[in-house]
Amino acid sequence: MNNDVLKVMTSNRGKYVEYKKKLKDHYHKIEMMNLDYPEIQADGLEEVVRFALEDLEEHSPLIIDDSGLFIDALDGFPGVYSAYVMKTIGCEGILTLMKEENHRSSRFECVIGYIGREKNIFKGISKGTITREKRGTEGFGYDPIFRPDGFERTYAEMSSEEKNRISHRGDAMEKLLDFVG
Amino acid sequence: MNNDVLKVMTSNRGKYVEYKKKLKDHYHKIEMMNLDYPEIQADGLEEVVRFALEDLEEHSPLIIDDSGLFIDALDGFPGVYSAYVMKTIGCEGILTLMKEENHRSSRFECVIGYIGREKNIFKGISKGTITREKRGTEGFGYDPIFRPDGFERTYAEMSSEEKNRISHRGDAMEKLLDFVG
Repeated sequence: MNNDVLKVMTSNRGKYVEYKKKLKDHYHKIEMMNLDYPEIQADGLEEVVRFALEDLEEHSPLIIDDSGLFIDALDGFPGVYSAYVMKTIGCEGILTLMKEENHRSSRFECVIGYIGREKNIFKGISKGTITREKRGTEGFGYDPIFRPDGFERTYAEMSSEEKNRISHRGDAMEKLLDFVG
Repeated sequence: MNNDVLKVMTSNRGKYVEYKKKLKDHYHKIEMMNLDYPEIQADGLEEVVRFALEDLEEHSPLIIDDSGLFIDALDGFPGVYSAYVMKTIGCEGILTLMKEENHRSSRFECVIGYIGREKNIFKGISKGTITREKRGTEGFGYDPIFRPDGFERTYAEMSSEEKNRISHRGDAMEKLLDFVG
């Protein structure tokens, strides 16, 4: 157990819940902090996170999270802009774009930017398939249309504990925990 | 006629051609400069341009351009991320998303960031309709699926001179020229 209060910089309550559940035994307290920081337009999540970390030292220890869904048949769309695409065309838009597509493989990526005694980046990936319709009500974002490899259910049909055990964010958090000890 | 060499900061040759045609009588020379500058993720083009201008003084006089297509039925998608969406799902993706949509109004926005003796921003808008199929081979980007109000042809069915007279970019350039005199 660490005596620090870890700040999770996000405006996404769903992400915060996943962090809190996984990290609560390792920190004295975990707080959600909705602070606006610059996110650049880039091809990869790492670049977005590295740029954002430049400005945030004063709030350490903290984590920021940039995540995205990369669909192979759509050349990686919605990718780095997954949050914006969710706000506009949403899961329905993705299903429409994929309607006549049989090659439905995709991956979720999560990049955690961490500032503690030093700055680090931890990346997690989960591979899966875009379903043909929305299934489930748990989680957030694209969870209802993403079925991880090796499972019959979508992320939205899993509890956050179960999702955390196998997800891109869970994977990145494991790497963070290995690092902070 | 101005003795300056105006730099147009863009990697998009189509944009450069439009600037060159409209501004060539007002500047000694117009050069394309493909310099990487940070573009933030934001809700509006102005915000992206204002942020980018912070870093570019040393190359003055210059213009940068951020443009986007905002489709009403898709809550403004692809908007600020139009370039990325073009690279991934393209015009075909937009047509797929709009397939069963009868409300097809949209607008192109262009924001010019200018650094001369001072910094300024000029915004142009053109309103129009998303066509049901691609038409024309001129221009670039979403031009083949955008028919401006009051015209039967898409931007891709117009010469760049004709497009410049009525387009969002032409509109923004007029405001720039009014300013620089």
